[in-house]
Amino acid sequence: MYRVGIVGYGTVGSGVAELLIKNKDVIKEKTGIDISLNAVLDKDWTRERPFNIDDNLRANSFEDLLDKSDIVVELIGGVNIAKDIIEKAMENKKHVVSANKHLLALHGKELIEKAYKYGVGFEFEASVGGGIPIIKALKEGLVANRINYIHGILNGTTNYILTRMLDDGMDFDIALKEAQSLGYAEQDPTFDIEGIDAAHKITILASIAYGGHINFKDVYIEGISNINLLDVELGRELGYTIKLLAVAKSTNNELEVRVHPAFIKSQEQMSKVSGVYNAILIDGDFVGKTLLYGKGAGSKPTASAVVSDIVDIAKHSGRSFLAFNKSLKINKNFYTRYYIRFEVEDKIGVLASITNVFAKYGISIASVLQKEMVCKVAKKENSLIVPLVILTHKAYELDVSKAIEEIKNLSVVKEKPVLIRLEEE
Amino acid sequence: MYRVGIVGYGTVGSGVAELLIKNKDVIKEKTGIDISLNAVLDKDWTRERPFNIDDNLRANSFEDLLDKSDIVVELIGGVNIAKDIIEKAMENKKHVVSANKHLLALHGKELIEKAYKYGVGFEFEASVGGGIPIIKALKEGLVANRINYIHGILNGTTNYILTRMLDDGMDFDIALKEAQSLGYAEQDPTFDIEGIDAAHKITILASIAYGGHINFKDVYIEGISNINLLDVELGRELGYTIKLLAVAKSTNNELEVRVHPAFIKSQEQMSKVSGVYNAILIDGDFVGKTLLYGKGAGSKPTASAVVSDIVDIAKHSGRSFLAFNKSLKINKNFYTRYYIRFEVEDKIGVLASITNVFAKYGISIASVLQKEMVCKVAKKENSLIVPLVILTHKAYELDVSKAIEEIKNLSVVKEKPVLIRLEEE
Repeated sequence: MYRVGIVGYGTVGSGVAELLIKNKDVIKEKTGIDISLNAVLDKDWTRERPFNIDDNLRANSFEDLLDKSDIVVELIGGVNIAKDIIEKAMENKKHVVSANKHLLALHGKELIEKAYKYGVGFEFEASVGGGIPIIKALKEGLVANRINYIHGILNGTTNYILTRMLDDGMDFDIALKEAQSLGYAEQDPTFDIEGIDAAHKITILASIAYGGHINFKDVYIEGISNINLLDVELGRELGYTIKLLAVAKSTNNELEVRVHPAFIKSQEQMSKVSGVYNAILIDGDFVGKTLLYGKGAGSKPTASAVVSDIVDIAKHSGRSFLAFNKSLKINKNFYTRYYIRFEVEDKIGVLASITNVFAKYGISIASVLQKEMVCKVAKKENSLIVPLVILTHKAYELDVSKAIEEIKNLSVVKEKPVLIRLEEE
Repeated sequence: MYRVGIVGYGTVGSGVAELLIKNKDVIKEKTGIDISLNAVLDKDWTRERPFNIDDNLRANSFEDLLDKSDIVVELIGGVNIAKDIIEKAMENKKHVVSANKHLLALHGKELIEKAYKYGVGFEFEASVGGGIPIIKALKEGLVANRINYIHGILNGTTNYILTRMLDDGMDFDIALKEAQSLGYAEQDPTFDIEGIDAAHKITILASIAYGGHINFKDVYIEGISNINLLDVELGRELGYTIKLLAVAKSTNNELEVRVHPAFIKSQEQMSKVSGVYNAILIDGDFVGKTLLYGKGAGSKPTASAVVSDIVDIAKHSGRSFLAFNKSLKINKNFYTRYYIRFEVEDKIGVLASITNVFAKYGISIASVLQKEMVCKVAKKENSLIVPLVILTHKAYELDVSKAIEEIKNLSVVKEKPVLIRLEEE
């Protein structure tokens, strides 16, 4: 019999309690193990919750909860207090389950070492992809593979907004407001729309897939707040769907870890992941491409992941084998394809002057799209301004940056060029 | 250090050997465990293989292989000899990994009990879905859920054939011949095209998801060999894509386990699984809908799954917790939607006489499609014969069978009616 204590009784906490109580019999039947919710700690019991527990399950203090638990579930979120709680639990020889992606991305290595030191289990399946068993897949199901890359749609809020922009021609601001009114986005949506949440998650996945610690400040992060409906629509015409993509990719013993808007081919499965759903595509040297798809957030799916961790710890007495300590070399000079939109004067020689710069930096152009009709145009200084889109073949990020910097200064180029990476499976 | 012995050095066997040798360092790095290929047994060493091992790894006999192994990997396929090998290995206190879906579907319960009795591990991730970690997902990642249903596209051969029919208007016979010439279908394709292979696999998944033994003869099996291009195209016009679907579904404490051609809505992710890919959609009470997608066969993806089992056994010393012994009640009176095509005389009163029979059996009609233009029509007995398609709302299989039996005997109905189930997420 394993006694569980939950710290933090919010949305996810109440989902975990509901699951442990309602499906106790299912878990027993499938595994032979008794998991019992024994204590819950929260600082405010007046809030409304989707599921209410018996008063006698309320712990008086963290010490009381530790006394009553074999496995401590940390669900308060944030970094500092959560870290304290987890460390104290481990020092008291308690196994720990956490859903805290922010904490894991910053201090994962340290906490895993601590768990190892105290001989306790430490699992965090719910930190990435809600109920999708993606950490288990990487850590166990695909353990024998060298991972070529991971592509993830890891943030439901931004995927909802981009889906609305793409399917319904909605502007970013309006789609964000709708997401907020539906409860899909927070009042302060910064972590989601600026890609930070997705960056926390890809950091965790990359650490597991490549067996090493990643310094969070080495992760390239670009959000969707500057995404223009024009680019969404031009991309679609070219056969691409826009997504906020999290990428971890191994090339020549170096690792790229990045989050940014990306165009992916509209035939690919990943492009069809819409609304608040999440998906993770893993390319392994033996398994090939494997995709996992499901609800990336919400009380119940997240609870499903938390409880799977609890069961794992109970089954295997919490022996954690995850190595996080290899040193990884991070590569920031990405080698990928690019969509670049310039706003240019519609006159002779413009295309030549731009393509000359690309040639100078060794960047090969795959296709050019100059639209006069479907796009909004503006008269400036007596000449027509039109969008000119260039799709490159694979090129180095640093070369592309230099080329764009130079092109920006050409007199025929108006406004700041838009760059969106193109990711292929 | 764990020593592995492989019995059966065919396509999958050589994939497993290649993986164990080439990625030994990756596995060590991620898990801290040394897995070493130590012996391989085969009766014929003259065959060509994709990967060749050192001669000194060849075992002289099964006894020799047992001596040299902690974990025995059974990859000979078939039922009787494979069962003997697995049982002997267990009796000699060896852990066992198998990819043998046929054997598992028939004797899974017995073998699991034997493993339990001898205190050894017994894993079979590779028996379903190639490299997709679906058994692990059901057994561990989603363990806390009551499973509402599983929908699986579990056979790449039939999915390839149906994709060619749908996308390229190819007839079944021609698509099958192409699949054979590409090596996607066997010379005797019966197991694949008649749905038996998919039925083995859904039996295994259902046993795990619902924690009980399923008598294989209780599984409803219908293949794709009678699928007509006309129905594929009519279905598409109605917004549905045809797939060979494996279903396990729990309703009122009874279980449906079935394999048959099914129409699924063309917007759904499952409808987009094309070619030789496999996918499994799981609907759990907490996790909601979760989909896993990847290569369902082939030497390397299958090896990825086999080696993940080996690593699991090594990590957890092979303690197997899977309960297979609950008794499950099988329901054969399915409750689902139906597409039914009749070939009828094009004259007044035909639709009324058919719909009267549906009404008599309490079957509610959702829509009717009568096509004159796009379909081939034939003059018979001086009247035009046209296809009449009826989509029902949810109805009981037994009622539908009775209604069709009665309608078949109406004088206006020519040829045998075609029935294809419609499965909704």
